[in-house]
Amino acid sequence: MEVSIITVGDELLIGQVVDTNSAWLGSELEERGFRIKEILSVSDQAPAITEALERSFEHSDILLMTGGLGPTKDDITKKTIADYFQDEMYFDEATFNRIQRLFTKLGRTPLEAHRLQCYMPKKATILRNSMGTAPGMLFKKGDKILISMPGVPYEMKAIMREEVLPLLERDYIQGARYKRTIRTIGNGESQIAEKIGHILDKFPDHISIAYLPGMGQVRLRISGSGEDLNVLKEEVEDFVDQISVELGDLVFGYDEDTIESVIGDILTQKKLKIAFAESCTGGYLSHRITSIPGSSQYLEGSFVTYSYDLKERLLDVNHETLITHGAVSEETVIEMVLGCLNKTSANIAISISGIAGPGGGTPDKPVGTIWLAISNGDITQTKKLSLLQDREKNIQRTAVYALNLLRKFLKEQY
Amino acid sequence: MEVSIITVGDELLIGQVVDTNSAWLGSELEERGFRIKEILSVSDQAPAITEALERSFEHSDILLMTGGLGPTKDDITKKTIADYFQDEMYFDEATFNRIQRLFTKLGRTPLEAHRLQCYMPKKATILRNSMGTAPGMLFKKGDKILISMPGVPYEMKAIMREEVLPLLERDYIQGARYKRTIRTIGNGESQIAEKIGHILDKFPDHISIAYLPGMGQVRLRISGSGEDLNVLKEEVEDFVDQISVELGDLVFGYDEDTIESVIGDILTQKKLKIAFAESCTGGYLSHRITSIPGSSQYLEGSFVTYSYDLKERLLDVNHETLITHGAVSEETVIEMVLGCLNKTSANIAISISGIAGPGGGTPDKPVGTIWLAISNGDITQTKKLSLLQDREKNIQRTAVYALNLLRKFLKEQY
Repeated sequence: MEVSIITVGDELLIGQVVDTNSAWLGSELEERGFRIKEILSVSDQAPAITEALERSFEHSDILLMTGGLGPTKDDITKKTIADYFQDEMYFDEATFNRIQRLFTKLGRTPLEAHRLQCYMPKKATILRNSMGTAPGMLFKKGDKILISMPGVPYEMKAIMREEVLPLLERDYIQGARYKRTIRTIGNGESQIAEKIGHILDKFPDHISIAYLPGMGQVRLRISGSGEDLNVLKEEVEDFVDQISVELGDLVFGYDEDTIESVIGDILTQKKLKIAFAESCTGGYLSHRITSIPGSSQYLEGSFVTYSYDLKERLLDVNHETLITHGAVSEETVIEMVLGCLNKTSANIAISISGIAGPGGGTPDKPVGTIWLAISNGDITQTKKLSLLQDREKNIQRTAVYALNLLRKFLKEQY
Repeated sequence: MEVSIITVGDELLIGQVVDTNSAWLGSELEERGFRIKEILSVSDQAPAITEALERSFEHSDILLMTGGLGPTKDDITKKTIADYFQDEMYFDEATFNRIQRLFTKLGRTPLEAHRLQCYMPKKATILRNSMGTAPGMLFKKGDKILISMPGVPYEMKAIMREEVLPLLERDYIQGARYKRTIRTIGNGESQIAEKIGHILDKFPDHISIAYLPGMGQVRLRISGSGEDLNVLKEEVEDFVDQISVELGDLVFGYDEDTIESVIGDILTQKKLKIAFAESCTGGYLSHRITSIPGSSQYLEGSFVTYSYDLKERLLDVNHETLITHGAVSEETVIEMVLGCLNKTSANIAISISGIAGPGGGTPDKPVGTIWLAISNGDITQTKKLSLLQDREKNIQRTAVYALNLLRKFLKEQY
């Protein structure tokens, strides 16, 4: 079954909004064995929407469309679809009642714009939107279907989860598919490709690999299709094992693992607590760790000490050290990490001090110079990074580096 | 001049990577007066790429393509384009020399995969990639052009900035266009639409509005096209003024302003320093503020106090208060904010304590219960939020709320 995704909205074309809906839809459908033919983003203009419908109905069985159903003037998808199906509109009392209940719950009154949203095409099957006002719609065209949903991501996801996915799972079936993702950290795509090339040469045609590089990490997706799930599974798992052995310590996890979740699992298991003393990363490392539910079990807390003054007052860094070696120095991060251990009940601490940029660099310490330290009181390790020139990337890359440092430290010392 | 963007890669279709390249390209081109016809994402298969080329050449003058130029096995764009143009490959010494210099600088040696990247189609004009190995390519087809670039965002952006945009600016000219963005915080799209509907009714055909909702914020993009830039500018600015007056305090800035940059500007101007005491937001508020270059001028630092213990030790919150009222209470955030002011040299502090979820809720204090306090020592304000159930969104929404609280506090008190 081939699926086309159509996202509607000038804001996507001119880049004021990044289309995250397509990626989410693609991932949900691929997991269920549907093949995503393409993603097409078009403007809020009737001819563009109509042409997208025509094209997609030609080569796909299922059309998923998001956007253009909001209450404001630039949203015209519903009318265009109705015209495409030569349909008429009616006022849908059920939708209006649902919106009224939603607003009563929020202590507000529906506006005129919300009343207008209740005019629906007669041929559409209404898909309930439990998170917002605009309902989704399902149209049939022969054996093919079109599903139109609002573009607000959490509303679209609610309609998908509650209405669309159960329907697709019921009505469409696929052959066997099997997929594993190997998650690596610390090497680039080319280095990994060189290491595992001799294994990939043995891949049969029905098994493939994709490299999915991210900030400081590369995911390897091994996927296959076949007749018999058990045979396929065994084949894929065998390759996953071979690649894992070859890559060794670069592999930190599989599938839905994240570096944060893997660290969280180890800390929970070993009953260890951590704390951070962040300077140039400004709280981002703490944010990454606290993005995991339950992180309060192992994160004691953090200090974001941007100023010299706070490094001294909160972490007992010596004024002398800061004056002699500067805030961005091995000496300072060592005092920061030990101060962080002293001021908290954490077993392990990480400290970071660097120049994220774009200002603040010197010939001696250019932008991108970052010092890190990790310590459990007995053992203290330090590391100097020399990164590139972009503030945001420097902050993110440093945090990823710190996370990997913590993962390795846990592996070595505990 | 109509532009089509084509992004290539199975990873985009199955949602393992979000296509941020298209948004960036769209934004850069739209700013220069190009019209983006559509964005099409297709798989790493030759027929899909070829069909995308045919379609896009049919209705656009400029094709921008990203992805599929990397050194690994799933990247086949270059070969497919060469076939499309019935072209042959040659080994490009200049590219190989550049790659060798790049690797020497990094203290590494090029791999075989990098050598293979140096085979280029003869008809292509090579576009230098200053940030990576795979070069970009430009092909002509009559009056139309195709530009193919690697999918790694910072490599693609470097090629665009250094090679493609100067070329497009030189060779293509457009009529007058003018655009302003009004940035609001604190109301939803529908509420804003209701407030300004009577102004939008006066918009002529050549001026339009788009609502661009984000987390807790809505951007209003007013754009127009015409013959005379001065006339158009006056018209658009007049509507911007009318809408700004109508929305009043909901407007926090314009165009490239962000809530963080607006706050940073006020703090710098008034020579004020801030500090945060974060619990459930886990450093995310500090991260938002420190995403702005130069924020070290006004951010003293932050405490991320996840545990009771750290709230007491670092912020002098009374043990009694925590036991009697709980960590998520008005009493606790008041003691946190005053402790934060005491322990730093900040003029203004914000404290946050809440239950981000998914665990930790009680009937009394369900997930999404968040207390905030802001204080300058003389005046302390508190606020309770009751948010929905998603951890990530709760953290983000709370940070946005805190930023708006700070903006308003600065406006009222200074």
